[in-house]
Amino acid sequence: MITWKNMDTLAAYAELQAADKVCLACAMSGENGAERVKNYTVPMGAGMDFNFGARPVNDNILSILAKFAQEQQMVDKFAALYNGEVINTGEKRKVLHHMCRGQLGDAVMADGVDKREFYVGEQNKIAAFANKVHNGEILNAAGEKFTTVCQIGIGGSDLGPRAIYLALENWAKVNNTLKMKAAFISNVDPDDAAGVLSNLDLPHTLFVLVSKSGTTLETLTNESFVKDALIKAGLNPANHMACVTSETSPLAKSPDYLAAFFMDDYIGGRFSSSSGVGGCVLSLAFGPEVFAEILNGAAEADKLATNTDLLKNPALLDALIGVYERNVLGYPCTAVLPYSQALSRFPAHLQQLDMESNGKSVNRFGEPVNYLTGPIIFGEPGTNGQHSFYQLLHQGTDIVPLQFVGFKNSQMGSDVVIQGSTSQQKLCANVAAQIVAFACGKDDTDLNKKFQGGRPSSIIVGEKLTPAALGALLAHFENKVMYQGFAWNVNSFDQEGVQLGKVLAKKVLAHDTDGALKVYSDLLNI
Amino acid sequence: MITWKNMDTLAAYAELQAADKVCLACAMSGENGAERVKNYTVPMGAGMDFNFGARPVNDNILSILAKFAQEQQMVDKFAALYNGEVINTGEKRKVLHHMCRGQLGDAVMADGVDKREFYVGEQNKIAAFANKVHNGEILNAAGEKFTTVCQIGIGGSDLGPRAIYLALENWAKVNNTLKMKAAFISNVDPDDAAGVLSNLDLPHTLFVLVSKSGTTLETLTNESFVKDALIKAGLNPANHMACVTSETSPLAKSPDYLAAFFMDDYIGGRFSSSSGVGGCVLSLAFGPEVFAEILNGAAEADKLATNTDLLKNPALLDALIGVYERNVLGYPCTAVLPYSQALSRFPAHLQQLDMESNGKSVNRFGEPVNYLTGPIIFGEPGTNGQHSFYQLLHQGTDIVPLQFVGFKNSQMGSDVVIQGSTSQQKLCANVAAQIVAFACGKDDTDLNKKFQGGRPSSIIVGEKLTPAALGALLAHFENKVMYQGFAWNVNSFDQEGVQLGKVLAKKVLAHDTDGALKVYSDLLNI
Repeated sequence: MITWKNMDTLAAYAELQAADKVCLACAMSGENGAERVKNYTVPMGAGMDFNFGARPVNDNILSILAKFAQEQQMVDKFAALYNGEVINTGEKRKVLHHMCRGQLGDAVMADGVDKREFYVGEQNKIAAFANKVHNGEILNAAGEKFTTVCQIGIGGSDLGPRAIYLALENWAKVNNTLKMKAAFISNVDPDDAAGVLSNLDLPHTLFVLVSKSGTTLETLTNESFVKDALIKAGLNPANHMACVTSETSPLAKSPDYLAAFFMDDYIGGRFSSSSGVGGCVLSLAFGPEVFAEILNGAAEADKLATNTDLLKNPALLDALIGVYERNVLGYPCTAVLPYSQALSRFPAHLQQLDMESNGKSVNRFGEPVNYLTGPIIFGEPGTNGQHSFYQLLHQGTDIVPLQFVGFKNSQMGSDVVIQGSTSQQKLCANVAAQIVAFACGKDDTDLNKKFQGGRPSSIIVGEKLTPAALGALLAHFENKVMYQGFAWNVNSFDQEGVQLGKVLAKKVLAHDTDGALKVYSDLLNI
Repeated sequence: MITWKNMDTLAAYAELQAADKVCLACAMSGENGAERVKNYTVPMGAGMDFNFGARPVNDNILSILAKFAQEQQMVDKFAALYNGEVINTGEKRKVLHHMCRGQLGDAVMADGVDKREFYVGEQNKIAAFANKVHNGEILNAAGEKFTTVCQIGIGGSDLGPRAIYLALENWAKVNNTLKMKAAFISNVDPDDAAGVLSNLDLPHTLFVLVSKSGTTLETLTNESFVKDALIKAGLNPANHMACVTSETSPLAKSPDYLAAFFMDDYIGGRFSSSSGVGGCVLSLAFGPEVFAEILNGAAEADKLATNTDLLKNPALLDALIGVYERNVLGYPCTAVLPYSQALSRFPAHLQQLDMESNGKSVNRFGEPVNYLTGPIIFGEPGTNGQHSFYQLLHQGTDIVPLQFVGFKNSQMGSDVVIQGSTSQQKLCANVAAQIVAFACGKDDTDLNKKFQGGRPSSIIVGEKLTPAALGALLAHFENKVMYQGFAWNVNSFDQEGVQLGKVLAKKVLAHDTDGALKVYSDLLNI
């Protein structure tokens, strides 16, 4: 029997607050430090490891976190979720994004169908469509193949799919699976659509419109923008557009699309990369087999997240150490720092995933909570960040926990040897060095050159950024965010905080404003 | 006579801490709120306005901030800086980036030359070079024109120039001044260079290597990578490369470059966009006249930053309100939210500018400070952010001050009317709505739908994102960061926090490691 409890009612949370803190710089020094780093590692799927040697925990803290997990029924709550309970209580919805990549528990029936079958069915429809586009069964009006796919969507219909496309574009090039180039239009700023379109070969571009509700104003506006451009170019939009939406949306049965693929209300936007929202554009870009590899990697990570042993459940471990850093140690932010240029937009995806899920001040019953919830998430790839904001991370007045990601091998394999090492070796040497520099610091009589250390990080290490590795990364963070929501007892699956802005923007457009809102509207010449 | 003082020794700081706080939601409501928003606005150069109606200040707080500015000798310190005093005391250097765009005070002599003349001289050399590339006096070995410029640089040699290029690329397209496309290689990850090169037409690409010292490992490594690629393509690298460096660097007199342009030690990387670091790539991309317009916009903002009247000095005002939010109200982060897709990478530039400058725990004498310094900076363009992390900004447990930027008109002029309004109107309506939603909130008996309000923001409003507007934006934030450094009494112009990582990375590459560092090196297979 599951009980939803605020974190500050847990005995384990009180114990956690009372427990002796770890001196990270001490723990990480010498041969004990070496042993610690060797031991504090957990497989996280697709051949990757989650190493938490440089997080501010020890065996005692870990044992309290295990009690916390037990007392808060963390793994049971995940089981309830994947077995189809209504976990998104605010919107009265099940939460089923895991089902796009596997069946972790019971069959789940909803809307009169088995949901796993439904999701797999849509994947198969998408795969068949993508294959037809690739093999020339679906052509443009001039009988030519499409060479580019352009997704029109915003938020979860943009950030995740875009981050994944960028992550695998070069991998696909060298593995000869780049079937089509992809582009993305998201912002309602008309310069976004106009700028992207100015770089596209319109007659050979297939657009994918993504909106679950079929009513997202930005996306419909950009669809119109694109249709205008197609018509001006003498092309029939209906020959150039597919859509991903829900079966009940106004788009679902429209004749305006080459094909329509369906998702449903049980998959939130920020969790939708493994549904058709990511599946359509990525299957078109890389081929359905590559998209299936992403799902397989995600399924591996999902499976690990069901483990009741904290030390074999990397998502739960990452989540609970994060809660400890946030609520007991008081750190306000988390930085995501992939040492991989291909992951340049992965932090932006995690920023949405995490901040939109857990940036809440009320629990799942709508009662105020008395503790901090979701942190600020930001990040850029290394080594670039080292030449940018790492100064503050090393020597600033706030401590920011860091989430590094690194791969032993590059995706493209091209490299040069300079000063006795390859670029890839330099890249990896830098992330290893940074972890130790942050954790251990360095004393100096000139305090301007002193590094205090004690700045925690973890690193996810993989062989190479492949589709499976990317899938496991994606699922790891989705599950981490879900587990933190369980810890804080918030509903991670709604987003009421986006509503007020929408309401007021409508008023501005209707010229139905007074007071400050009218002055700002005038300032902006609306 | 200037005295460098810690902030907590100032009488005005004590007064600030004791002053009654503003209820922002109250202050912004009704006709008083409208009056407030109308009054709390300052011109900030290039036709833009800095509106701080939704920041948590009132006339009383502003009058104390004016005393603070006086007591901390803020404007005098800026004057000392632009008159050539050694403000970067750690590295014993003058700070002269303003001089790239104008002469605010005395002539400054250094290295035996008038520095304004030196910077203008380099600008003229760059302009002449760019004109020759554009008019075909400088051609590739096959006698063809170069069509693309690719900058190789990292940190300040990448983020600012890249952000500016992206900001003006579409503007240049519609104004017929896009002379060459630009690309950027920065990360030591070999997939960065390999990926960028795979999209370039090498025979028609001119590379610009940017490294002040001529020893930046990432940049030299990427130079080698590019030279390898050129040679493999049967091209002579010396025909395809220019460099921007200091006169004393090993690159300065090398025969490996078509041309060398110089900067010096008085311009830090993150402040170097208006030097040759930005000037070369941007003059090649857009033409020297467009780069000159950027500098003119920056000069306008610089001039305003010399104003002793706080209410006529937007950079100083922005800085001091930020200090108040950080140190008195205790807000840990600042988000930069441009409602302009063209400014997509401007937040990443400001992230470096701000966090590398003021992420310090010691004052300019190397003594620990007892107050918080630079905040975490992050951001993404609106309306995209609304569909991502705004949930936390509206309803999360931390308050994050917001810096909006908006323009009345789009750059490209293409637009569509949907539901009675253009995309540009929707974009502007959204930013107006967000400011009021954040500040005023909305009550609701369902606390999940309640918005607490009291979340501060300012907005910079311009007619259109032009080169001059971009220049003014750039300089505004440079000056804001400088002023915050003066307030906190830190040296904003060094970055000792980047050193330890470099030292340890070298050890890893030399296999000179033990303890935890060796384990991480093994994990990453170095």
